[in-house]
Amino acid sequence: MNKKPTILVTNDDGITAPGIRALIEAVKDYGHVVVVAPDKPQSAQGHALTINMPLRLRKVKLFDDIEAYECSGTPVDCVKLAKDVVLGDRGIDLCVSGVNHGSNASINIIYSGTVSAAMEASLEGINSIGFSLLDYSFEANFEPAKKYIRHLVTYVLKNGLKNTKLLNVNIPNLPAEQIKGLKICRQAEAKWIEEFTRSKDPHGRDYYWLTGKFTNLDDGEDADVKALENGYVSVVPSQHDLTAYDAIEGLREAEQLDIGH
Amino acid sequence: MNKKPTILVTNDDGITAPGIRALIEAVKDYGHVVVVAPDKPQSAQGHALTINMPLRLRKVKLFDDIEAYECSGTPVDCVKLAKDVVLGDRGIDLCVSGVNHGSNASINIIYSGTVSAAMEASLEGINSIGFSLLDYSFEANFEPAKKYIRHLVTYVLKNGLKNTKLLNVNIPNLPAEQIKGLKICRQAEAKWIEEFTRSKDPHGRDYYWLTGKFTNLDDGEDADVKALENGYVSVVPSQHDLTAYDAIEGLREAEQLDIGH
Repeated sequence: MNKKPTILVTNDDGITAPGIRALIEAVKDYGHVVVVAPDKPQSAQGHALTINMPLRLRKVKLFDDIEAYECSGTPVDCVKLAKDVVLGDRGIDLCVSGVNHGSNASINIIYSGTVSAAMEASLEGINSIGFSLLDYSFEANFEPAKKYIRHLVTYVLKNGLKNTKLLNVNIPNLPAEQIKGLKICRQAEAKWIEEFTRSKDPHGRDYYWLTGKFTNLDDGEDADVKALENGYVSVVPSQHDLTAYDAIEGLREAEQLDIGH
Repeated sequence: MNKKPTILVTNDDGITAPGIRALIEAVKDYGHVVVVAPDKPQSAQGHALTINMPLRLRKVKLFDDIEAYECSGTPVDCVKLAKDVVLGDRGIDLCVSGVNHGSNASINIIYSGTVSAAMEASLEGINSIGFSLLDYSFEANFEPAKKYIRHLVTYVLKNGLKNTKLLNVNIPNLPAEQIKGLKICRQAEAKWIEEFTRSKDPHGRDYYWLTGKFTNLDDGEDADVKALENGYVSVVPSQHDLTAYDAIEGLREAEQLDIGH
Protein backbone atom coordinates (compact mmCIF):
# COMPACT_ATOMS: atom_id res chain seq x y z
CA MET A 1 0.00 0.00 0.00
CA ASN A 2 1.65 3.22 -1.11
CA LYS A 3 -0.80 5.67 0.38
CA LYS A 4 -0.95 5.58 4.16
CA PRO A 5 -4.13 3.67 5.09
CA THR A 6 -6.93 5.58 6.78
CA ILE A 7 -7.88 3.96 10.08
CA LEU A 8 -11.17 4.88 11.74
CA VAL A 9 -11.14 4.45 15.52
CA THR A 10 -14.38 4.29 17.52
CA ASN A 11 -15.74 2.65 20.66
CA ASP A 12 -18.81 2.37 22.85
CA ASP A 13 -17.45 3.43 26.24
CA GLY A 14 -17.17 7.02 25.01
CA ILE A 15 -14.34 9.17 23.73
CA THR A 16 -12.94 9.82 27.22
CA ALA A 17 -12.59 6.13 28.14
CA PRO A 18 -9.04 4.84 28.70
CA GLY A 19 -9.64 1.98 26.26
CA ILE A 20 -9.94 4.18 23.17
CA ARG A 21 -6.77 6.02 24.13
CA ALA A 22 -4.94 2.69 24.34
CA LEU A 23 -6.32 1.69 20.94
CA ILE A 24 -5.22 4.97 19.35
CA GLU A 25 -1.73 4.57 20.81
CA ALA A 26 -1.56 1.02 19.46
CA VAL A 27 -2.57 1.85 15.88
CA LYS A 28 -1.37 5.40 15.26
CA ASP A 29 1.88 4.38 13.56
CA TYR A 30 0.11 2.21 11.00
CA GLY A 31 -1.90 4.79 9.15
CA HIS A 32 -3.72 8.09 9.15
CA VAL A 33 -5.91 7.77 12.24
CA VAL A 34 -9.29 9.53 12.53
CA VAL A 35 -11.38 9.15 15.70
CA VAL A 36 -15.20 9.43 15.77
CA ALA A 37 -16.60 8.19 19.07
CA PRO A 38 -19.61 8.72 21.34
CA ASP A 39 -19.56 11.72 23.68
CA LYS A 40 -20.85 9.52 26.53
CA PRO A 41 -20.88 5.82 27.43
CA GLN A 42 -22.98 3.75 25.04
CA SER A 43 -22.41 0.25 26.35
CA ALA A 44 -24.93 -2.45 25.48
CA GLN A 45 -26.37 -0.32 22.69
CA GLY A 46 -26.11 -3.21 20.25
CA HIS A 47 -26.74 -2.06 16.71
CA ALA A 48 -29.00 0.81 17.79
CA LEU A 49 -29.06 3.89 15.61
CA THR A 50 -30.65 7.30 15.97
CA ILE A 51 -33.38 8.12 13.48
CA ASN A 52 -35.82 10.27 15.46
CA MET A 53 -33.35 12.88 16.70
CA PRO A 54 -30.65 15.05 15.19
CA LEU A 55 -27.03 14.11 15.82
CA ARG A 56 -24.24 16.41 16.94
CA LEU A 57 -20.64 16.08 15.86
CA ARG A 58 -17.96 18.15 17.58
CA LYS A 59 -14.27 18.32 16.80
CA VAL A 60 -12.19 17.69 19.91
CA LYS A 61 -8.51 17.90 20.75
CA LEU A 62 -7.87 14.98 23.07
CA PHE A 63 -5.18 12.89 21.38
CA ASP A 64 -2.28 15.22 20.47
CA ASP A 65 -2.46 15.95 16.74
CA ILE A 66 -4.94 13.21 15.85
CA GLU A 67 -8.15 14.31 14.11
CA ALA A 68 -10.96 13.45 16.51
CA TYR A 69 -14.71 14.05 16.86
CA GLU A 70 -17.24 13.28 19.53
CA CYS A 71 -20.77 12.40 18.46
CA SER A 72 -24.03 12.54 20.40
CA GLY A 73 -25.23 9.21 19.00
CA THR A 74 -24.62 5.50 19.29
CA PRO A 75 -21.49 3.66 18.13
CA VAL A 76 -23.26 2.76 14.88
CA ASP A 77 -24.20 6.42 14.35
CA CYS A 78 -20.52 7.29 14.81
CA VAL A 79 -19.45 4.95 12.03
CA LYS A 80 -22.17 6.21 9.69
CA LEU A 81 -21.19 9.84 10.35
CA ALA A 82 -17.50 9.03 10.01
CA LYS A 83 -18.07 7.42 6.64
CA ASP A 84 -20.46 9.91 5.15
CA VAL A 85 -19.67 13.24 6.79
CA VAL A 86 -16.17 13.18 8.28
CA LEU A 87 -14.24 11.05 5.81
CA GLY A 88 -16.40 11.00 2.69
CA ASP A 89 -14.10 10.72 -0.34
CA ARG A 90 -11.09 10.12 1.86
CA GLY A 91 -12.43 6.60 2.47
CA ILE A 92 -11.75 4.17 5.30
CA ASP A 93 -9.27 1.30 4.90
CA LEU A 94 -9.75 -0.23 8.33
CA CYS A 95 -12.12 0.34 11.24
CA VAL A 96 -11.03 -0.57 14.77
CA SER A 97 -13.39 -0.31 17.72
CA GLY A 98 -12.60 -0.44 21.41
CA VAL A 99 -10.70 -1.28 23.41
CA ASN A 100 -13.88 -2.19 25.25
CA HIS A 101 -13.77 -2.34 29.02
CA GLY A 102 -15.18 -5.86 29.46
CA SER A 103 -15.75 -9.03 27.45
CA ASN A 104 -17.54 -9.17 24.12
CA ALA A 105 -16.92 -12.88 23.68
CA SER A 106 -19.71 -15.35 22.93
CA ILE A 107 -23.26 -13.95 22.81
CA ASN A 108 -22.05 -10.62 24.17
CA ILE A 109 -21.39 -9.78 20.52
CA ILE A 110 -25.17 -9.41 20.12
CA TYR A 111 -25.44 -6.66 22.77
CA SER A 112 -22.09 -5.02 22.15
CA GLY A 113 -21.87 -1.47 20.88
CA THR A 114 -18.15 -2.01 20.29
CA VAL A 115 -18.61 -4.90 17.89
CA SER A 116 -21.75 -3.39 16.34
CA ALA A 117 -19.71 -0.33 15.37
CA ALA A 118 -17.17 -2.60 13.69
CA MET A 119 -19.96 -4.59 12.07
CA GLU A 120 -21.48 -1.40 10.69
CA ALA A 121 -18.19 -0.63 8.94
CA SER A 122 -17.99 -4.24 7.72
CA LEU A 123 -21.45 -3.86 6.14
CA GLU A 124 -19.83 -1.15 4.01
CA GLY A 125 -17.14 -3.58 2.89
CA ILE A 126 -14.51 -2.17 5.26
CA ASN A 127 -12.29 -4.62 7.16
CA SER A 128 -13.11 -4.09 10.81
CA ILE A 129 -11.95 -5.32 14.20
CA GLY A 130 -13.61 -5.01 17.59
CA PHE A 131 -11.20 -5.25 20.53
CA SER A 132 -12.27 -5.96 24.11
CA LEU A 133 -10.29 -6.52 27.30
CA LEU A 134 -11.75 -8.73 30.01
CA ASP A 135 -11.46 -6.03 32.66
CA TYR A 136 -14.37 -3.68 33.37
CA SER A 137 -12.39 -1.29 35.56
CA PHE A 138 -11.39 2.25 34.68
CA GLU A 139 -7.82 1.39 35.75
CA ALA A 140 -7.56 -1.63 33.44
CA ASN A 141 -4.07 -2.32 32.12
CA PHE A 142 -4.21 -2.13 28.32
CA GLU A 143 -0.46 -2.59 27.78
CA PRO A 144 -0.53 -6.37 27.17
CA ALA A 145 -3.41 -5.86 24.72
CA LYS A 146 -1.49 -3.39 22.57
CA LYS A 147 0.97 -5.97 21.27
CA TYR A 148 -1.87 -8.13 19.94
CA ILE A 149 -3.72 -5.16 18.53
CA ARG A 150 -0.59 -4.12 16.61
CA HIS A 151 -0.14 -7.62 15.22
CA LEU A 152 -3.72 -8.01 14.08
CA VAL A 153 -3.86 -4.54 12.55
CA THR A 154 -0.57 -5.16 10.71
CA TYR A 155 -1.82 -8.56 9.56
CA VAL A 156 -5.15 -7.26 8.26
CA LEU A 157 -3.63 -4.21 6.55
CA LYS A 158 -1.09 -6.47 4.81
CA ASN A 159 -3.17 -9.56 4.03
CA GLY A 160 -6.78 -8.40 4.09
CA LEU A 161 -9.45 -10.82 5.24
CA LYS A 162 -11.03 -13.73 3.38
CA ASN A 163 -14.69 -14.77 3.80
CA THR A 164 -15.18 -12.22 6.54
CA LYS A 165 -14.92 -8.47 7.04
CA LEU A 166 -15.17 -8.52 10.82
CA LEU A 167 -13.05 -9.89 13.65
CA ASN A 168 -14.30 -10.02 17.23
CA VAL A 169 -11.15 -9.98 19.37
CA ASN A 170 -11.14 -10.50 23.13
CA ILE A 171 -8.06 -10.24 25.31
CA PRO A 172 -7.72 -12.01 28.66
CA ASN A 173 -7.05 -9.93 31.75
CA LEU A 174 -3.59 -11.33 32.33
CA PRO A 175 -0.05 -10.00 32.56
CA ALA A 176 1.69 -10.02 29.16
CA GLU A 177 3.91 -13.00 29.99
CA GLN A 178 0.91 -15.17 30.86
CA ILE A 179 -0.91 -14.61 27.56
CA LYS A 180 -0.27 -17.69 25.43
CA GLY A 181 -0.90 -16.18 21.97
CA LEU A 182 -3.72 -15.73 19.50
CA LYS A 183 -6.37 -18.35 18.80
CA ILE A 184 -8.85 -18.31 15.91
CA CYS A 185 -12.17 -19.38 17.42
CA ARG A 186 -15.89 -19.73 16.94
CA GLN A 187 -18.48 -17.91 19.05
CA ALA A 188 -19.18 -19.89 22.23
CA GLU A 189 -22.73 -20.86 23.18
CA ALA A 190 -23.65 -19.18 26.44
CA LYS A 191 -26.43 -17.32 28.19
CA TRP A 192 -27.01 -14.55 30.67
CA ILE A 193 -28.91 -15.51 33.79
CA GLU A 194 -30.73 -12.28 34.52
CA GLU A 195 -31.76 -11.04 37.85
CA PHE A 196 -33.71 -7.83 38.14
CA THR A 197 -33.24 -5.86 41.32
CA ARG A 198 -36.65 -4.58 42.35
CA SER A 199 -36.71 -1.52 44.52
CA LYS A 200 -38.77 1.58 45.32
CA ASP A 201 -37.88 5.11 44.24
CA PRO A 202 -38.13 8.09 46.63
CA HIS A 203 -41.76 8.48 45.51
CA GLY A 204 -42.65 4.92 46.51
CA ARG A 205 -42.91 3.61 42.98
CA ASP A 206 -41.34 0.31 41.90
CA TYR A 207 -38.39 0.23 39.59
CA TYR A 208 -36.30 -2.60 38.17
CA TRP A 209 -32.61 -2.66 37.48
CA LEU A 210 -31.02 -5.25 35.25
CA THR A 211 -28.20 -7.38 36.58
CA GLY A 212 -27.04 -10.70 35.26
CA LYS A 213 -24.49 -13.44 35.38
CA PHE A 214 -22.79 -14.70 32.23
CA THR A 215 -22.93 -18.48 32.04
CA ASN A 216 -20.78 -20.36 29.54
CA LEU A 217 -22.47 -23.45 28.06
CA ASP A 218 -19.70 -24.43 25.65
CA ASP A 219 -16.59 -26.40 26.55
CA GLY A 220 -15.25 -26.71 22.99
CA GLU A 221 -11.55 -25.92 22.79
CA ASP A 222 -12.30 -23.84 19.68
CA ALA A 223 -14.92 -21.70 21.46
CA ASP A 224 -13.85 -18.17 22.33
CA VAL A 225 -14.76 -18.29 26.03
CA LYS A 226 -12.69 -21.46 26.53
CA ALA A 227 -9.72 -19.97 24.65
CA LEU A 228 -9.83 -16.93 26.93
CA GLU A 229 -10.02 -19.15 30.01
CA ASN A 230 -6.96 -20.95 28.68
CA GLY A 231 -5.03 -17.68 28.41
CA TYR A 232 -5.36 -16.99 24.69
CA VAL A 233 -6.47 -13.87 22.84
CA SER A 234 -9.61 -15.07 21.01
CA VAL A 235 -10.27 -14.01 17.41
CA VAL A 236 -13.71 -14.86 15.99
CA PRO A 237 -14.30 -14.08 12.30
CA SER A 238 -17.88 -12.85 12.23
CA GLN A 239 -20.65 -11.98 9.79
CA HIS A 240 -23.95 -10.19 9.44
CA ASP A 241 -25.81 -13.00 7.67
CA LEU A 242 -27.98 -14.43 10.44
CA THR A 243 -29.66 -17.08 8.29
CA ALA A 244 -29.84 -20.46 10.00
CA TYR A 245 -29.17 -22.38 6.77
CA ASP A 246 -29.54 -25.76 8.52
CA ALA A 247 -33.15 -24.92 9.32
CA ILE A 248 -34.32 -24.08 5.81
CA GLU A 249 -35.17 -27.58 4.55
CA GLY A 250 -36.96 -28.53 7.76
CA LEU A 251 -39.28 -25.57 7.33
CA ARG A 252 -40.33 -26.30 3.75
CA GLU A 253 -43.52 -27.99 4.91
CA ALA A 254 -44.60 -24.71 6.48
CA GLU A 255 -44.82 -23.33 2.93
CA GLN A 256 -47.43 -25.93 2.13
CA LEU A 257 -50.01 -24.95 4.70
CA ASP A 258 -53.51 -24.51 3.47
CA ILE A 259 -54.03 -20.79 3.80
CA GLY A 260 -57.61 -20.83 2.72
CA HIS A 261 -59.48 -19.85 5.83
CA MET B 1 -50.22 -29.64 24.34
CA ASN B 2 -52.78 -29.93 27.12
CA LYS B 3 -52.06 -26.71 28.94
CA LYS B 4 -52.83 -23.60 26.93
CA PRO B 5 -49.49 -22.24 25.66
CA THR B 6 -48.30 -18.92 27.03
CA ILE B 7 -47.61 -16.47 24.21
CA LEU B 8 -45.56 -13.34 24.92
CA VAL B 9 -46.34 -10.45 22.57
CA THR B 10 -43.96 -7.52 22.20
CA ASN B 11 -42.86 -5.01 19.55
CA ASP B 12 -40.60 -2.03 18.95
CA ASP B 13 -43.10 0.55 17.70
CA GLY B 14 -44.55 0.87 21.19
CA ILE B 15 -47.62 -0.54 22.91
CA THR B 16 -49.98 1.97 21.26
CA ALA B 17 -48.93 1.11 17.69
CA PRO B 18 -51.61 -0.45 15.46
CA GLY B 19 -49.24 -3.31 14.57
CA ILE B 20 -49.17 -4.84 18.04
CA ARG B 21 -52.95 -4.69 18.25
CA ALA B 22 -53.17 -6.60 14.98
CA LEU B 23 -50.70 -9.18 16.30
CA ILE B 24 -52.67 -9.65 19.52
CA GLU B 25 -55.89 -10.09 17.56
CA ALA B 26 -54.20 -12.67 15.34
CA VAL B 27 -52.79 -14.83 18.14
CA LYS B 28 -55.19 -14.44 21.05
CA ASP B 29 -57.14 -17.60 20.30
CA TYR B 30 -54.04 -19.80 20.32
CA GLY B 31 -52.93 -19.45 23.91
CA HIS B 32 -52.75 -17.38 27.04
CA VAL B 33 -51.48 -14.05 25.71
CA VAL B 34 -49.37 -11.67 27.81
CA VAL B 35 -48.17 -8.36 26.37
CA VAL B 36 -45.00 -6.55 27.50
CA ALA B 37 -44.07 -3.77 25.11
CA PRO B 38 -42.25 -0.42 25.12
CA ASP B 39 -44.15 2.65 26.32
CA LYS B 40 -42.80 4.64 23.35
CA PRO B 41 -41.44 3.94 19.88
CA GLN B 42 -38.11 2.07 19.98
CA SER B 43 -37.44 1.53 16.29
CA ALA B 44 -33.87 0.83 15.17
CA GLN B 45 -32.84 0.02 18.73
CA GLY B 46 -31.21 -3.21 17.60
CA HIS B 47 -30.28 -5.40 20.53
CA ALA B 48 -29.82 -2.43 22.87
CA LEU B 49 -30.54 -2.96 26.54
CA THR B 50 -30.71 -0.65 29.52
CA ILE B 51 -28.06 -1.20 32.16
CA ASN B 52 -27.34 2.29 33.49
CA MET B 53 -30.89 3.29 34.34
CA PRO B 54 -33.80 1.75 36.22
CA LEU B 55 -36.72 0.38 34.25
CA ARG B 56 -40.40 1.00 34.83
CA LEU B 57 -43.12 -1.55 34.24
CA ARG B 58 -46.75 -0.47 34.35
CA LYS B 59 -49.85 -2.62 33.99
CA VAL B 60 -52.17 -1.22 31.31
CA LYS B 61 -55.68 -2.01 30.13
CA LEU B 62 -55.55 -1.55 26.38
CA PHE B 63 -56.59 -4.89 24.88
CA ASP B 64 -59.86 -5.96 26.55
CA ASP B 65 -59.10 -8.64 29.13
CA ILE B 66 -55.55 -9.39 27.99
CA GLU B 67 -52.81 -8.98 30.59
CA ALA B 68 -50.57 -6.17 29.33
CA TYR B 69 -47.66 -4.06 30.57
CA GLU B 70 -45.79 -1.11 29.18
CA CYS B 71 -42.09 -0.84 29.90
CA SER B 72 -39.81 2.19 29.80
CA GLY B 73 -36.97 0.26 28.14
CA THR B 74 -36.00 -1.21 24.80
CA PRO B 75 -37.66 -4.22 23.14
CA VAL B 76 -34.93 -6.48 24.55
CA ASP B 77 -35.54 -5.06 28.04
CA CYS B 78 -39.23 -5.91 27.59
CA VAL B 79 -38.46 -9.55 26.88
CA LYS B 80 -36.05 -9.82 29.81
CA LEU B 81 -38.62 -8.25 32.17
CA ALA B 82 -41.39 -10.43 30.77
CA LYS B 83 -39.37 -13.56 31.37
CA ASP B 84 -37.98 -12.75 34.79
CA VAL B 85 -40.50 -10.45 36.43
CA VAL B 86 -43.89 -10.75 34.72
CA LEU B 87 -44.05 -14.42 33.80
CA GLY B 88 -41.36 -16.09 35.94
CA ASP B 89 -42.48 -19.62 36.73
CA ARG B 90 -45.40 -19.35 34.36
CA GLY B 91 -42.88 -19.67 31.50
CA ILE B 92 -43.15 -18.62 27.86
CA ASP B 93 -43.98 -21.13 25.12
CA LEU B 94 -43.77 -18.73 22.19
CA CYS B 95 -42.68 -15.13 21.71
CA VAL B 96 -44.10 -13.08 18.85
CA SER B 97 -42.90 -9.57 18.10
CA GLY B 98 -44.45 -6.92 15.87
CA VAL B 99 -46.25 -6.47 13.66
CA ASN B 100 -43.54 -3.97 12.76
CA HIS B 101 -44.51 -1.01 10.63
CA GLY B 102 -41.88 -1.43 7.89
CA SER B 103 -39.54 -4.07 6.49
CA ASN B 104 -37.10 -6.06 8.57
CA ALA B 105 -35.94 -8.15 5.63
CA SER B 106 -32.29 -8.55 4.70
CA ILE B 107 -29.77 -6.59 6.80
CA ASN B 108 -32.59 -4.68 8.49
CA ILE B 109 -32.61 -7.59 10.92
CA ILE B 110 -29.38 -6.17 12.37
CA TYR B 111 -30.99 -2.83 13.28
CA SER B 112 -34.43 -4.12 14.10
CA GLY B 113 -35.80 -3.85 17.62
CA THR B 114 -38.67 -6.11 16.56
CA VAL B 115 -36.47 -9.02 15.58
CA SER B 116 -33.99 -8.35 18.40
CA ALA B 117 -36.82 -8.80 20.89
CA ALA B 118 -37.65 -12.14 19.30
CA MET B 119 -33.96 -13.06 19.21
CA GLU B 120 -33.65 -12.27 22.91
CA ALA B 121 -36.41 -14.79 23.64
CA SER B 122 -34.74 -17.30 21.29
CA LEU B 123 -31.49 -16.95 23.30
CA GLU B 124 -33.53 -18.32 26.20
CA GLY B 125 -34.55 -21.33 24.16
CA ILE B 126 -38.03 -19.97 23.41
CA ASN B 127 -39.40 -20.34 19.87
CA SER B 128 -39.82 -16.80 18.57
CA ILE B 129 -41.14 -15.03 15.53
CA GLY B 130 -40.67 -11.44 14.42
CA PHE B 131 -43.39 -10.16 12.07
CA SER B 132 -43.07 -7.08 9.89
CA LEU B 133 -45.34 -5.53 7.27
CA LEU B 134 -43.80 -3.57 4.40
CA ASP B 135 -45.85 -0.48 5.15
CA TYR B 136 -44.51 2.25 7.43
CA SER B 137 -47.78 4.13 7.72
CA PHE B 138 -49.95 4.37 10.81
CA GLU B 139 -52.93 3.42 8.65
CA ALA B 140 -51.31 0.23 7.36
CA ASN B 141 -53.74 -2.60 6.61
CA PHE B 142 -52.74 -5.56 8.79
CA GLU B 143 -55.67 -7.77 7.76
CA PRO B 144 -53.86 -9.72 5.03
CA ALA B 145 -50.94 -10.30 7.45
CA LYS B 146 -53.14 -11.90 10.11
CA LYS B 147 -53.84 -15.01 8.05
CA TYR B 148 -50.12 -15.74 7.70
CA ILE B 149 -49.45 -14.93 11.34
CA ARG B 150 -52.12 -17.41 12.41
CA HIS B 151 -50.69 -20.10 10.16
CA LEU B 152 -47.13 -19.68 11.34
CA VAL B 153 -48.11 -19.50 15.00
CA THR B 154 -50.23 -22.63 14.64
CA TYR B 155 -47.40 -24.38 12.78
CA VAL B 156 -44.75 -23.51 15.37
CA LEU B 157 -46.96 -24.36 18.36
CA LYS B 158 -47.76 -27.72 16.78
CA ASN B 159 -44.44 -28.70 15.20
CA GLY B 160 -41.83 -26.67 17.02
CA LEU B 161 -38.74 -25.53 15.11
CA LYS B 162 -35.66 -27.54 14.10
CA ASN B 163 -32.14 -26.04 13.96
CA THR B 164 -33.47 -22.59 14.72
CA LYS B 165 -35.44 -20.82 17.45
CA LEU B 166 -36.13 -17.65 15.48
CA LEU B 167 -38.11 -16.80 12.36
CA ASN B 168 -37.86 -13.40 10.69
CA VAL B 169 -41.13 -12.99 8.81
CA ASN B 170 -41.87 -10.14 6.42
CA ILE B 171 -45.20 -9.56 4.73
CA PRO B 172 -45.57 -7.69 1.45
CA ASN B 173 -47.79 -4.63 1.35
CA LEU B 174 -50.36 -6.18 -0.94
CA PRO B 175 -54.08 -6.98 -0.87
CA ALA B 176 -54.73 -10.49 0.45
CA GLU B 177 -55.58 -11.93 -2.95
CA GLN B 178 -52.26 -10.80 -4.43
CA ILE B 179 -50.08 -12.49 -1.80
CA LYS B 180 -48.80 -15.72 -3.34
CA GLY B 181 -48.06 -17.66 -0.15
CA LEU B 182 -45.17 -18.31 2.21
CA LYS B 183 -41.58 -18.78 1.10
CA ILE B 184 -38.72 -20.07 3.28
CA CYS B 185 -35.76 -17.83 2.44
CA ARG B 186 -32.25 -16.78 3.33
CA GLN B 187 -31.32 -13.24 4.35
CA ALA B 188 -30.63 -11.13 1.24
CA GLU B 189 -27.37 -9.22 0.86
CA ALA B 190 -28.10 -5.52 0.73
CA LYS B 191 -26.92 -2.19 2.02
CA TRP B 192 -28.21 1.16 3.12
CA ILE B 193 -26.93 4.14 1.20
CA GLU B 194 -26.89 6.79 3.88
CA GLU B 195 -27.37 10.44 3.41
CA PHE B 196 -27.13 12.77 6.35
CA THR B 197 -29.16 15.95 6.16
CA ARG B 198 -26.98 18.73 7.52
CA SER B 199 -28.78 21.75 8.89
CA LYS B 200 -28.51 24.49 11.51
CA ASP B 201 -30.51 24.62 14.73
CA PRO B 202 -32.16 27.88 15.97
CA HIS B 203 -28.87 28.66 17.76
CA GLY B 204 -26.85 28.44 14.57
CA ARG B 205 -25.17 25.13 15.40
CA ASP B 206 -24.88 22.29 12.92
CA TYR B 207 -26.84 19.13 13.32
CA TYR B 208 -27.10 15.96 11.24
CA TRP B 209 -30.12 13.79 10.62
CA LEU B 210 -29.85 10.29 9.28
CA THR B 211 -31.70 9.33 6.14
CA GLY B 212 -30.96 6.44 3.85
CA LYS B 213 -32.03 4.38 0.91
CA PHE B 214 -32.20 0.60 1.12
CA THR B 215 -30.43 -1.01 -1.82
CA ASN B 216 -30.86 -4.69 -2.57
CA LEU B 217 -27.71 -6.40 -3.90
CA ASP B 218 -29.10 -9.92 -4.12
CA ASP B 219 -31.17 -11.29 -6.97
CA GLY B 220 -31.32 -14.87 -5.67
CA GLU B 221 -34.82 -16.31 -5.87
CA ASP B 222 -34.29 -17.71 -2.35
CA ALA B 223 -33.38 -14.30 -0.88
CA ASP B 224 -36.03 -12.64 1.26
CA VAL B 225 -36.10 -9.30 -0.56
CA LYS B 226 -36.68 -11.00 -3.91
CA ALA B 227 -39.42 -13.22 -2.44
CA LEU B 228 -41.19 -10.12 -1.13
CA GLU B 229 -40.85 -8.41 -4.51
CA ASN B 230 -42.40 -11.51 -6.04
CA GLY B 231 -45.41 -11.25 -3.73
CA TYR B 232 -44.51 -13.87 -1.12
CA VAL B 233 -44.41 -13.68 2.65
CA SER B 234 -40.71 -14.30 3.43
CA VAL B 235 -39.71 -16.54 6.34
CA VAL B 236 -35.99 -16.57 7.25
CA PRO B 237 -34.90 -19.00 9.97
CA SER B 238 -32.29 -17.05 11.89
CA GLN B 239 -29.64 -17.51 14.57
CA HIS B 240 -27.45 -15.69 17.03
CA ASP B 241 -24.19 -17.44 16.14
CA LEU B 242 -22.38 -14.82 14.07
CA THR B 243 -19.25 -16.92 13.46
CA ALA B 244 -18.08 -16.77 9.83
CA TYR B 245 -17.05 -20.44 9.80
CA ASP B 246 -15.71 -20.19 6.23
CA ALA B 247 -13.13 -17.68 7.38
CA ILE B 248 -11.59 -19.70 10.21
CA GLU B 249 -9.06 -21.74 8.21
CA GLY B 250 -7.88 -18.74 6.22
CA LEU B 251 -7.03 -16.94 9.43
CA ARG B 252 -4.91 -19.70 10.98
CA GLU B 253 -1.71 -18.06 9.79
CA ALA B 254 -2.57 -15.02 11.91
CA GLU B 255 -2.10 -17.28 14.95
CA GLN B 256 1.48 -17.86 13.90
CA LEU B 257 2.66 -14.27 13.99
CA ASP B 258 5.85 -13.63 15.88
CA ILE B 259 4.62 -11.64 18.84
CA GLY B 260 8.06 -10.95 20.25
CA HIS B 261 8.41 -7.23 19.74
